[in-house]
Amino acid sequence: MTPERVLQYQAKGAGFTLSYATELVSDEILEFLFGLAKEREIVKWMHRMQAGEVVNLSENRAALHTAMRLKKGAKHLSTAALQAAELAWGQLDALSDFLPTVSGYTDIVQVGIGGSSLGPEAIYHALKAYAIPGRKAHFIANIDPDQTAAVLQSVNLAKTLFVIVSKSGSTLETVTSEAIIRSALIKAGLDPTLHLIGVTGKGSPMDEKTRYRALFYIWDFVGGRFSVTSMVGAVVLAFTLGIETFFHFLDGAYAMDGVALKDSLQDNLPLLGALIGVWNRSFLGLDTVAVVPYAEALARFPAHLQQLDMESNGKGSDRQDSKVTYPTGPILFGEPGTSCQHSFFQLIHQGTTPVPLELIGFTTSQRGYDLKVNGTTSQQKLVGNMLAQSLALALGKPEGGFPGNRPSQLLIGQRCDAHTLGALLAYYEHKVAFQGFFWNINSFDQPGVELGKHLATRMIGALAGSQVAPLEEAFARLLGSASSTR
Amino acid sequence: MTPERVLQYQAKGAGFTLSYATELVSDEILEFLFGLAKEREIVKWMHRMQAGEVVNLSENRAALHTAMRLKKGAKHLSTAALQAAELAWGQLDALSDFLPTVSGYTDIVQVGIGGSSLGPEAIYHALKAYAIPGRKAHFIANIDPDQTAAVLQSVNLAKTLFVIVSKSGSTLETVTSEAIIRSALIKAGLDPTLHLIGVTGKGSPMDEKTRYRALFYIWDFVGGRFSVTSMVGAVVLAFTLGIETFFHFLDGAYAMDGVALKDSLQDNLPLLGALIGVWNRSFLGLDTVAVVPYAEALARFPAHLQQLDMESNGKGSDRQDSKVTYPTGPILFGEPGTSCQHSFFQLIHQGTTPVPLELIGFTTSQRGYDLKVNGTTSQQKLVGNMLAQSLALALGKPEGGFPGNRPSQLLIGQRCDAHTLGALLAYYEHKVAFQGFFWNINSFDQPGVELGKHLATRMIGALAGSQVAPLEEAFARLLGSASSTR
Repeated sequence: MTPERVLQYQAKGAGFTLSYATELVSDEILEFLFGLAKEREIVKWMHRMQAGEVVNLSENRAALHTAMRLKKGAKHLSTAALQAAELAWGQLDALSDFLPTVSGYTDIVQVGIGGSSLGPEAIYHALKAYAIPGRKAHFIANIDPDQTAAVLQSVNLAKTLFVIVSKSGSTLETVTSEAIIRSALIKAGLDPTLHLIGVTGKGSPMDEKTRYRALFYIWDFVGGRFSVTSMVGAVVLAFTLGIETFFHFLDGAYAMDGVALKDSLQDNLPLLGALIGVWNRSFLGLDTVAVVPYAEALARFPAHLQQLDMESNGKGSDRQDSKVTYPTGPILFGEPGTSCQHSFFQLIHQGTTPVPLELIGFTTSQRGYDLKVNGTTSQQKLVGNMLAQSLALALGKPEGGFPGNRPSQLLIGQRCDAHTLGALLAYYEHKVAFQGFFWNINSFDQPGVELGKHLATRMIGALAGSQVAPLEEAFARLLGSASSTR
Repeated sequence: MTPERVLQYQAKGAGFTLSYATELVSDEILEFLFGLAKEREIVKWMHRMQAGEVVNLSENRAALHTAMRLKKGAKHLSTAALQAAELAWGQLDALSDFLPTVSGYTDIVQVGIGGSSLGPEAIYHALKAYAIPGRKAHFIANIDPDQTAAVLQSVNLAKTLFVIVSKSGSTLETVTSEAIIRSALIKAGLDPTLHLIGVTGKGSPMDEKTRYRALFYIWDFVGGRFSVTSMVGAVVLAFTLGIETFFHFLDGAYAMDGVALKDSLQDNLPLLGALIGVWNRSFLGLDTVAVVPYAEALARFPAHLQQLDMESNGKGSDRQDSKVTYPTGPILFGEPGTSCQHSFFQLIHQGTTPVPLELIGFTTSQRGYDLKVNGTTSQQKLVGNMLAQSLALALGKPEGGFPGNRPSQLLIGQRCDAHTLGALLAYYEHKVAFQGFFWNINSFDQPGVELGKHLATRMIGALAGSQVAPLEEAFARLLGSASSTR
């Protein structure tokens, strides 16, 4: 590790600097990885994806989330991309017209789960420092009745909107929550059709204009975990932050979409991040990744990335539907720094299983509220800690039981604002897609959730009294006996 | 998997049922593990720990967190334990006397990081459904100035208490936050000594009666991540939930402390959980654990467990200070179900790296607000999903690309209330301690954070302009150049 290496091993794009001097890579390794990437045509696949070709082979669909932020008048990659963008613009225009009609409302509750919740929640949390005064968002995702109760009891229902988000219009959790919310509104003497907004696919069971104050549409070419920039995120974010802020967010994502199309490794940040990740996972055999934002605003961002990465690339079969014989996507987790330095960083420094780190930081704070204590501001202390951890992991202190050579990287932006967050969101979307292309897996389907859903239906039947099979009955008895222990 | 196995492989204690039929263990394996546990005297070590013997060898300290909840008049294991308990009772009496003097306050902000934050935050979040109406807690842990600003701007300072928690009295983040809070109170025309409460070690730089409205004490025989039941958790939890609720919480922990002393494997839940974890980690070679509470109230509980487990057992040296040659503590993460079923469960079902699951659920909801939709309540749907996932992971569906035989366990309590949470907290404290005893590591120190702290001080110096070494300077330049990219 030398100063020269620090200054050489960095790349810039869409407002971010990716510093990878503290990764376990050399020029030779990067060249080797880039060679493999070319063989596997992964940048070409990115072009195909953004052009709307069928990249989700198992479901015979495009993955056109990039069309959701294509700028009007900008160069487009294909007629398919333009047509998808026109659909998105139509929805954004409708949203722009709609928002002034609900200016009297103060709160908005996003009702949706998984891809209909984690991304919008992470971005709302990241940007709520800039929210329109008096406006607030809440999230009901879980079927847990206590979550629904807590949210409903914390708002003034008369001034609250509910955005019900389900592409299929039949998600168990979301359909159930909608029923409970309608019943609560009616009990409060309110008309649900004035408070409920639907976001769903055309023709779904939810696609009934009379049930909602407004209906917005999403399409099967935008997957749930890639849908933050579609109407899935647009309604809640534009209501709370203002539509102009939402447009800045789209602009940031659009800027990173362009970066992901670049042919040169040094200019293509998501590609560089993806290949370093492949090195850690496929060559060094490291099974996990910790994403540590040095910004409390990004506290929920790792949960979004957990879905984005683990649902996309946690696959057991390749694109030809053969069982894979090599490791696919890693296990991702994370909490904000510096807090987690006082928590799980013990294991990061000295545990027997090395964990590659992705540290995210910003040079400037959001709110500008700071104080010099002992010569430095808190923001300086915050980023100083981030840089120091990266260095400490690389250098170690072998005589003190710190092995060193533990890989990390720094992703540094100027300020955690809407444009920066759009770029960060798209950075990870494309990093994940590049890794899926590299591993020859389909990052855009999710067969792994179906078996659980099927068994859940049977189990819920058993709990309702209509026992269906001895195993379910045994579990139901286990639950019954647990109720009477204390 | 048979109904008989489900009904046989369960253990009960302190209000919980641990169901482990879906783990990859047999009678022979459990007997083998229990034999190793006896050889290593791990239940004896638990007795020694609760009796106040020196179990933290590197720091020559006891680990007497169990004394914090020893019931008055109950049987104690040693004079040391009784003396520690008497110290705790003295503090609790002082707290009982203090609380009525601040009945006019509405908000309390816990200012502390790591062990002074994650546990109390997790428990507050878990129990806030039972909070005294009008009382609310907030947490400032991070050095991030935006977190401090967000909290300070969200409360009425005139009615807000701040509990500054640092055992050493010199934690960078906490000392800085205290300075910022004092300055904010003075700016608002308020007297900081009326609003600030200190929780620290006797003789620390914070141990100055004139600086605080009240001072409460903690001792070096209670480690940060084991300190929730000490004054670290007591002030914020008793203020918001009421001291009676806090006593129920202590009672629950005390009940599980007793369970952890039992000699029979089938009666000792934390020991059983620990040995199954050892099987997964040391024998099956699984590096991670996902803790998935089927309760939104426990949303922050995995972050507490992350610290508890990874800081305690993420060690590279054994108790004789030799480098270990076997895997120690696993990597722990988690998010509430059912939400995460729609997120990272794709990888859990089909990813190439199996992840053992610990599912936590309750038969009854907290708030009793529920509705039957399609024949079942939301609480039934919630626990039905938990049971179904456990079964789906075990059975798989090999013809559909689901390998099955993926280990999981269920920890089921009756209701997420104070007593139950106390027991759950202690369950994990003891599970972690048992695993540390098994692996012959010191679960009670944390040398891995010191190197980072040292480098951080130098790096902050570099950012303040007093460059100290070329590497730090290179990083500082990297940061400077990142500010001017966009």
